Parts: sequence; structure tokens; C-alpha cells
Amino acid sequence: MKVIVNGLGIIGGSICAALKKAGHTVYGKNRNKQSIAYALEHNMIDDEARSYDGADAIILALPPSIVMHELDCGNFPSDVVVADICGVKEPLEKIVLSRQRDYRYVGLHPMAGKETTGITSASANLFRGANLIFTVNEQTDKAALNTMRRLGKDMGFLRFVECSARRHDEMIALTSQLAHVVSNAYVKSPFTEICMGFTGGSYQDMTRIAGMDETVWSELFFLNRENLIDEIERLRRELGRFSDILSNGDEEELQALIVEGKDFYTRFKHKN
Amino acid sequence: MKVIVNGLGIIGGSICAALKKAGHTVYGKNRNKQSIAYALEHNMIDDEARSYDGADAIILALPPSIVMHELDCGNFPSDVVVADICGVKEPLEKIVLSRQRDYRYVGLHPMAGKETTGITSASANLFRGANLIFTVNEQTDKAALNTMRRLGKDMGFLRFVECSARRHDEMIALTSQLAHVVSNAYVKSPFTEICMGFTGGSYQDMTRIAGMDETVWSELFFLNRENLIDEIERLRRELGRFSDILSNGDEEELQALIVEGKDFYTRFKHKN
Repeated sequence: MKVIVNGLGIIGGSICAALKKAGHTVYGKNRNKQSIAYALEHNMIDDEARSYDGADAIILALPPSIVMHELDCGNFPSDVVVADICGVKEPLEKIVLSRQRDYRYVGLHPMAGKETTGITSASANLFRGANLIFTVNEQTDKAALNTMRRLGKDMGFLRFVECSARRHDEMIALTSQLAHVVSNAYVKSPFTEICMGFTGGSYQDMTRIAGMDETVWSELFFLNRENLIDEIERLRRELGRFSDILSNGDEEELQALIVEGKDFYTRFKHKN
Repeated sequence: MKVIVNGLGIIGGSICAALKKAGHTVYGKNRNKQSIAYALEHNMIDDEARSYDGADAIILALPPSIVMHELDCGNFPSDVVVADICGVKEPLEKIVLSRQRDYRYVGLHPMAGKETTGITSASANLFRGANLIFTVNEQTDKAALNTMRRLGKDMGFLRFVECSARRHDEMIALTSQLAHVVSNAYVKSPFTEICMGFTGGSYQDMTRIAGMDETVWSELFFLNRENLIDEIERLRRELGRFSDILSNGDEEELQALIVEGKDFYTRFKHKN
């Protein structure tokens, strides 16, 4: 297939690298020409794309606001499959469905990433073994979905899940956005600056994504604010239960509280 | 050296395995004889210890309540070096300092572990590259500290930090205990059970330790409750700032909030 990827950051670059390795013809588009040069040098793309012409599939690997603009006003060839990789989906779907479209849209959310950004962090192996979410609606074209599923396999994804944009945004508030909020809030302790030598794997895991890109993530958070606020407030209540029992309760109550979380986690693990 | 390790769980077992590999003579003590058999079979110990006699160093790798009892009433040979590996230190130190002791105490906290427990999870490499905290006070014997430092190196630890028991407990509320509380609280969402396929590395990192051992950790939390409550409530306030801005603020304010955490994290990373 001929695939055009617009946006050569860590995700877009990794998509290019993986698809080219799998034998597809891959063209890259990027405002910053250094990323194009890097992608060419590292054999991630066949060439720069000057337009969307001739593409079988177009993947928009750009921040949500730019993707929304592109989905609304982009100059796509008729019938082409257009996918995005944004971390929120309902606001995008609303735009796509707001009027008749000539292109065939599929929402993608690769559940993989790194705490670093940019094409220099991209890798053909980034998605190996990871989950890929497809968002679909009553207008989703089956053939377009199959095309993206095939490309997803070629990118290295292991597991595929299909859901509505609304369900995606609810789930992602828990599985991705809340994690970024927690990590960023976690490090704001007076002890953070002096904790050298006092840290182990738990701290590293908890804080790894604290330094997220503020531009992309503030956009994502606002576009999913209701679901995210629900999850933040749910977590604050749960943390409060720990404080309350530590202040006024006993070890037996605390054990029961821990077991409650352990049970949630065990049920999750058994299904995963 | 002849080292006796009392308590053959993941930490005690890993200490035995690492020290034996480094050429020390290692004896293990454990209530459950299956762990002794496992340690012998896997060449982690030279033999079972029937008493503390003849030891150069004794390491108590047991839950805090048992360690406290042992530090108070244990039948230790005169002048022997006694160390523990508990995740809280002030309550233990209070017991040690409550009257004249015949043994020489050093507090240890290995900043390494796994989300699994028991000697079957133990490994001679568990501490490789990790941090080891020593808690010291005005009565700490320099030679005893050096003995434990040498053993710490032989266990594979890379970095050593010395501090008071009080400072340890403050720091550990942030770097270890809060992480366990957050992880356990994080998974208590109605979406946890249905989020198969929606998870990636951030979620895995955030929830890895949710299934902690409730007996050990409820003890540790209560023994450090003031520091831990401070950290939980600090985090709840920080999370609340996200909710507030998402409810009433704008993207610029949210970006500033994210950058604040990013700055904390960058300063931490530069020192680490």
C-alpha cells in the first residue's frame, strides 16, 4: 500500500518506520523539514509527500487541534482511508460526522509511547505487542477498517479492540490521562528535590511520565474534561479513604481497603 | 563473613543468594521450612541457622512487628552487627535506643523489590544497580556500618545514602508508601474491569504494585502514618488543582500547571 503519514513525531515516525519495514511505500509530511531529513536518512520513509494524492491510506499523527482542522478542511482524495492517532475521539468524530465526507474515516489510538518525544525517539518496534484501539460508528466503512487493521498488524500491534468514540474517551480517561495527571501531581512534593538515593522502581514507575508535553496534553485533557474530572475526583475520594483510616481507623480496616484494590487489580489481570 | 538472614521472603532470599554468590557463608532462618528447603535447593544458603551463634552479621528480613520484637528481645551474640530491611525506621530505632544493647544496630532499606512475594521470586540480581539506604544515629557503630556497607556492595547495590531514621521515614512516605497507596486506589474505577485492550505502559506502571501484601503494608503505613497522611493529602490537593482548572480555567493555566510538575521532575532527574 501507499501510505502517507502527516506528522513525524515519535508516533508518526514509528508508524513510518514499521510500515516501511513491512514493505509498504511510505511518504511523510511534516512542517519541520529536519524531521523529513531525519526520516529519509534513517530509512523510515520513501520520500516526502507534497500532497495527499495517490494514497491508499493517510494517517494523521498530529496534535488534536490540527487533526480536527485537517479532518474538516483537509484536501483528501475521494474514498481514501483517513485515520488519526489522537488520544481523544469524540470531538474528532463529531467533526467527521458533521457533514457528508468524501473520505473514509477510522479512529486509531495506539496504546504505546515513551516519555520522550520527537522523531529521534521513533522506532519500528514501538508498537510491538501493544494494544491498538479502533473507534467506529454507524458510518464506518468496513473495508476501511480492514485496511487499518491490516496496517495495524504490520505496525506490530498484538491486540485490537473496537469501540465507540464515547467509550474510548471514558476508558482513556482512566488508562492514560489520569496516569499523566497523577504522575505530574505526584512529583510536586517538597521532598522530590532531595530524594536522591531514596528511590526505587515504584517511584520511577509513578513519575516516569511527569514531564509530558504540556501543549499536547493540555489539549487532550480539555477535550475530555468531563471524563477526566470524574476519574480525578474518584481517585481523590479513594485516596481520602486511606487518609481517613490512617487517621481514625485500625489495621484491620486498612487491610480491607488494600484488599479491595487488590481484588480490582486481580480481576483486571485475569482478563488481561 | 558468616551472615545469618532471618526471614526468607523475596528480600531475605535475594540477600542470601547475592551474598552466597559473593563468597560469604550464609545461613537462613525461617518459620516455614519449605522456604529453607527451597533456599538450600537453589544454593541460596549454606545451611539452616538454628541460632544466631557465630554470626558476624545478622539481617532481619521480616515484617516490622516481628523485627521490633526481635530487636527488643532477640537472643543476639555480644557485639554482633544486626541489621533490618524494614520500610520504616523511626519506630525500630526507638526500640533499639530505649535501653543499652549488646548488639550493634544498623538500619537498612533496600530500594528494590518486585510486585511478587516469597522466596520463589528471590534473585541474586534483585539489588543490582539499586539504592541502599542506611539509617544512622549518634550511637551507630562505625565499624558495624562499614560491615553493612561492604555487604551491601556484595549484594549488588550501586548507591548508598546515610540519613537519620526520621529523614528516612519522611522520604519513604513519598518515594515508596505513597506509590503503593496511589496504585491501590487507582484501580478502584468502574472502568478497571472492562479496560482490556485499552491499556498501555502508563497504566501498567501506575497499577503494577496495586496488589501489594496487605499485612506488611498496612503495618508499614500505620507505623509511618503522619508522614504518609501528609503526602496523601498533598497529592489530593495537587490533583484538585487539575480538576479546578479543567472545570473553571483555560488551556494556558493547565499548561502552566503541567510545566510546574515538569520542572520538579527535571530538577529531580538532573540530580539522579
